[in-house]
Amino acid sequence: MAIKITGTGSYIPNNIEKNEDFIRHEFLNEDGSSINRENDIIIEKFKAITGIEERRYAENHLTTSDLAFFAAKKAIKDSKIDQEELDYIIVGHNYGDVIHNTEQSDTVPSIGSRVKHLLGIKNPKCVAYDILFGCPGWNEGLIQANAFIKAGIAKKCLVIGAEALSRVIDKHDRDSMIYSDGAGAVVLEETKDEGGIISHESATYALDEAHFIYFGETNNPAVKNKRRYIKMYGRKIYEFALNHVPTAMKSCLDKSGYKIEDLKKILIHQANEKMDEAIVQRFYKLYNLEMPEGIMPMTINKLGNSSVATIPTLYDLILNGELEGHEINKGDVIMFASVGAGMNINAIVYKF
Amino acid sequence: MAIKITGTGSYIPNNIEKNEDFIRHEFLNEDGSSINRENDIIIEKFKAITGIEERRYAENHLTTSDLAFFAAKKAIKDSKIDQEELDYIIVGHNYGDVIHNTEQSDTVPSIGSRVKHLLGIKNPKCVAYDILFGCPGWNEGLIQANAFIKAGIAKKCLVIGAEALSRVIDKHDRDSMIYSDGAGAVVLEETKDEGGIISHESATYALDEAHFIYFGETNNPAVKNKRRYIKMYGRKIYEFALNHVPTAMKSCLDKSGYKIEDLKKILIHQANEKMDEAIVQRFYKLYNLEMPEGIMPMTINKLGNSSVATIPTLYDLILNGELEGHEINKGDVIMFASVGAGMNINAIVYKF
Repeated sequence: MAIKITGTGSYIPNNIEKNEDFIRHEFLNEDGSSINRENDIIIEKFKAITGIEERRYAENHLTTSDLAFFAAKKAIKDSKIDQEELDYIIVGHNYGDVIHNTEQSDTVPSIGSRVKHLLGIKNPKCVAYDILFGCPGWNEGLIQANAFIKAGIAKKCLVIGAEALSRVIDKHDRDSMIYSDGAGAVVLEETKDEGGIISHESATYALDEAHFIYFGETNNPAVKNKRRYIKMYGRKIYEFALNHVPTAMKSCLDKSGYKIEDLKKILIHQANEKMDEAIVQRFYKLYNLEMPEGIMPMTINKLGNSSVATIPTLYDLILNGELEGHEINKGDVIMFASVGAGMNINAIVYKF
Repeated sequence: MAIKITGTGSYIPNNIEKNEDFIRHEFLNEDGSSINRENDIIIEKFKAITGIEERRYAENHLTTSDLAFFAAKKAIKDSKIDQEELDYIIVGHNYGDVIHNTEQSDTVPSIGSRVKHLLGIKNPKCVAYDILFGCPGWNEGLIQANAFIKAGIAKKCLVIGAEALSRVIDKHDRDSMIYSDGAGAVVLEETKDEGGIISHESATYALDEAHFIYFGETNNPAVKNKRRYIKMYGRKIYEFALNHVPTAMKSCLDKSGYKIEDLKKILIHQANEKMDEAIVQRFYKLYNLEMPEGIMPMTINKLGNSSVATIPTLYDLILNGELEGHEINKGDVIMFASVGAGMNINAIVYKF
């Protein structure tokens, strides 16, 4: 018996927002002061660090629950299950549905209920709920689904990560260029196969780190309303991630019983290219090894950071042969790893 | 081995809002038309249906995560565990932190992370996350904690329900009188005792019912902003609850192996007094019995409907001898049952 992903789906919004689309934005420091650099320099530096050339924004008439639904529908179809057999719909997100040009997050009913409604699932025993766990929310949903199957209270679960960060960004903040929209979904189920989820590791660092990613006002002191946006202390997050993510990944791999040489791919949350590379390099350094080439498929350059959606989207693209130079084959041992608001970290070792 | 609640705590805000405090409100129908009744008549009718005489509002400087923290601290103390031993902090809520006199829900970081920060817990392996599941969110958190313990990935979990509905009410809507603020928490752990969580039942009805409780604009057409508030179709919810909650309770009890005569107390979500009574009467009718006197402790008359917080608060008050005429003793079989936004229903049979 193995608990395995039997279907994947993703939704990548059509609207492409390129770096040059930010050229006329008035970027300001957190204290409202001028950055004293031309925007083309700011953008060039941004790209050098994050790797981001363009990102995707959901169309104006869509919200997070729509993106979640589109990805879910594909995952169900791919898994070939009857959707009425689902025991759980678990949605990782962080801001709920924010209608375009409005401020409020709409979380009642839950995004899970909305997705279930849109899918047209009748079976009331299919329980839909949302999990808030920062960017690692999709991984954590997978860990929960795995626990429900192990505990004997579920057989088939739909786990979705969906976010529309474009709805909560401060245009006067350089970090606004990082964020993107998207959704990814998988069906996890009990199978007669071998492999599947082998081990996992989760952590919440909240003593000093709880508010590294937070909801804050615009950098523009001329704006007098109290509207708040996604904000982060980038430098602190970078240091935190480098200190704690590689050890969590090592702990997860060591628990799995597999050796570092067995690892074929690491699907890491697409947060920031330089940070992600530094994390994976340091992970290999813990085993006194250099990071192997091609171990870390990346989508951030074209898709930006869509929070909970990056890993299931990446996984779906690879399985569908849409990420050049990357494939995952029967028997391959891979890792999903993430870090984000909370500050939360998690990792999963999965045998395909 | 039994999975049992070893500590409870609740936080009841100090501000009492009495029915007469609503006497000068301008109540309007959903379509903006006048109700054509004096407010004293509206309030009297409201009280006759819901049983609510007064409700509690959090003080202005507090948010949902503060209420959650206050309840959590008491539950940890009561359980006598070392808080560093907690494997999970699970928070059921629906609107996040809404600062007084602002509109936005703040959900990043999660309320769980905020509570962990306020508690000062250092151990990173204590994983904090939030669950969005409407009013039954605390029950569902308990079901999840139980699954994690059964699956072998946790031993001790803190499960909190916290909400400040006063921050999302439309003063022009009669239903605004229903809502209240509060928090309840329990520690659930593996013990060498017998009893504990025996069975559970969960359901999500989303095909026609997903939007019975929703986020909508004020009833006052003179207000031109787009701010949204908690809204519900009361009549539809009443019919839905009567049709589906008693059967879910029966299914849960039948799974437990206990007989209806074994049930000592039913702790039902404090939604509306008449509706709650009708649900429990119909539950007994499914066994061809009359509802026994004193089976259903109620707090709604003084505490209103504080969503996820009502059941853990009720439980805590009874155990502390603060609910006259009600007690729960060693070996008693009780039930927690809830219904709310989603529309979600759940029930748990628990042996004290």
